[in-house]
Amino acid sequence: MQKQLNPNSQKIVILAEGSFGVLESKTATVLVRYLPKNVVAVIDSNNAGKDVSEVIGIGEGIPVVSNLASAMQYQPTMLAIGIAPPGGELPKPWYSILCMAIRNGLHIMSGLHYFLSDDAELSELAADHDVVLWDARKPPENLPVATCKAANVDATVILTVGSDCRVGKMLSGIEVTHEAKNRGLNAEFCPTGQNGIMVWGWGIAIDAVISDFTAGAAEQIVLEGAKNHDLLIVEGQGSLVHPGYSGVTLSLLHGSMPDAMIFCHQPSRKKVARYTIPLPSLSEMIAHYEMLTAPIKPAKVIGLALNCFDLTEKEANEAIAAVEEETGLPATDVVKFGAEKLVDVVQKTHQ
Amino acid sequence: MQKQLNPNSQKIVILAEGSFGVLESKTATVLVRYLPKNVVAVIDSNNAGKDVSEVIGIGEGIPVVSNLASAMQYQPTMLAIGIAPPGGELPKPWYSILCMAIRNGLHIMSGLHYFLSDDAELSELAADHDVVLWDARKPPENLPVATCKAANVDATVILTVGSDCRVGKMLSGIEVTHEAKNRGLNAEFCPTGQNGIMVWGWGIAIDAVISDFTAGAAEQIVLEGAKNHDLLIVEGQGSLVHPGYSGVTLSLLHGSMPDAMIFCHQPSRKKVARYTIPLPSLSEMIAHYEMLTAPIKPAKVIGLALNCFDLTEKEANEAIAAVEEETGLPATDVVKFGAEKLVDVVQKTHQ
Repeated sequence: MQKQLNPNSQKIVILAEGSFGVLESKTATVLVRYLPKNVVAVIDSNNAGKDVSEVIGIGEGIPVVSNLASAMQYQPTMLAIGIAPPGGELPKPWYSILCMAIRNGLHIMSGLHYFLSDDAELSELAADHDVVLWDARKPPENLPVATCKAANVDATVILTVGSDCRVGKMLSGIEVTHEAKNRGLNAEFCPTGQNGIMVWGWGIAIDAVISDFTAGAAEQIVLEGAKNHDLLIVEGQGSLVHPGYSGVTLSLLHGSMPDAMIFCHQPSRKKVARYTIPLPSLSEMIAHYEMLTAPIKPAKVIGLALNCFDLTEKEANEAIAAVEEETGLPATDVVKFGAEKLVDVVQKTHQ
Repeated sequence: MQKQLNPNSQKIVILAEGSFGVLESKTATVLVRYLPKNVVAVIDSNNAGKDVSEVIGIGEGIPVVSNLASAMQYQPTMLAIGIAPPGGELPKPWYSILCMAIRNGLHIMSGLHYFLSDDAELSELAADHDVVLWDARKPPENLPVATCKAANVDATVILTVGSDCRVGKMLSGIEVTHEAKNRGLNAEFCPTGQNGIMVWGWGIAIDAVISDFTAGAAEQIVLEGAKNHDLLIVEGQGSLVHPGYSGVTLSLLHGSMPDAMIFCHQPSRKKVARYTIPLPSLSEMIAHYEMLTAPIKPAKVIGLALNCFDLTEKEANEAIAAVEEETGLPATDVVKFGAEKLVDVVQKTHQ
């Protein structure tokens, strides 16, 4: 399983040239949010001279610089590719930047669909300079077809599910894990996507796995997490109503065999992003997830994580109250109000 | 899309050494059933000297021979690998048989997960002898994420779905297509698995596609089929209650965007094969499929194809009557009783 480097022990420069602060640089934002002590600089000539917090609202004290040469003064040990373009390809102008970083002795961490370690020239250069090309999205070899082994682990398994992509399934999973650990629980976050893997240091990007083995990959993640932990928070992917990714979502649901689910949603989102499909009601979407778990291992949604980034605190509180009224379940925005409410219900399931 | 050779213009010898007539040789059986004029011999030393029909009940007049040398007297132009082992690997002793076949000028057709065309030695040998290594399971490059384009085709799209693997989703799809063509409809079967591709000559094995693009592959199949046909019968895969393959099933459902579905089931099957999971009731399983289409493009199950291979004709008729009573939908066994009943309801949808 992907665990070639511990990002927590690296000094990271993030490459986000031309894209920092826009949708494609979600990876950069996630790294700044969860590895603030490790990120030493962000490269983006458009924003050079600013503080990271001026661009994305977090990351105070981290400088944006114009190029790799400027970033080297902060003595990085790793360069992280900070964008995730829809096609997953490497922007061509970045190739020479990667070569330069390798020559400067930096490890490279990438979540692109295009695997750097499959590039002969980069691989040779990396070997010459004794650095690692870490493709967070590259799945391990020989994944099995799922065989319901995840049902046998001693750990309690919680899966974050949701209404769409980019509603907070990774973020709420990490926040719940942090709060559970704060309470002294032996909890572990189980990453299933490249960004989660890059901040947490292990996992499998299940959307990069051949579909026959995707549920098997989810099963492997749970078996791995359960080796040393008794409460697993598995990162969800996609949505059952997403025309492109619903299969990934269902593979994860059936492979990880959760004991309970946390449903993630952005109250202002009315349609599947980039599609014209209206989202069903929350109750309907929750019923879909619960119904599909029933024949294999029944699991209920026990709480909701709402992403209210585009609402005021007052509006967020109103949205939360409305969702609690509609579903009868506890809801919160983990960024605005913390994950306590969700960990309360997770603990009830864990007892 | 996979269309390198037309199997209908080949003389085929099937390699099923040591396995002919057992579960793993499903591919051999499918080829005998649907390309009876093309299959000239089956290699299996265990059954050498028999007629194919003595081993699998169909294929009268086709000899089983002990090795490739014996098969050459029937002047084959292609060798087809007739097994699909769970792991999808090439049995080691077969490697030299493939080399010998290539040296004899035979094309090779394979549905294994292991791609012959990725083997440098076999590829070089094939090039030297001007033959094709056709990996029916190898997906095309650059498949897109699904974007609901399948909703825009002029063709009527029928998807076969089902309760489990190996209940007849491919076979009933082919039988319905044949009967629709018999009635003069401009119908096309759209294969989504290696066996369907091997008998029909095109398609994409969607279980071999990276999960992010699996629904996109299903979409491409529908767009391709709709270029020259106005009634498409899309081959289903897996089942929504199959712990290993449910994600493939849902990707296909959302990517192909059917107008209606035919539900396939084996009445004697009470659990998911190879698992201990009891199958839900037919009504529940049908409701699952219909519910998951609803948010994206609503589609109903319009009939059932029952696989009664292990029942007498009387028992099959009773099973069909019971299912029609339970679901209120027309049901039949297309092998025992023909596909007329199903094409009747397909035509109503197609009007």
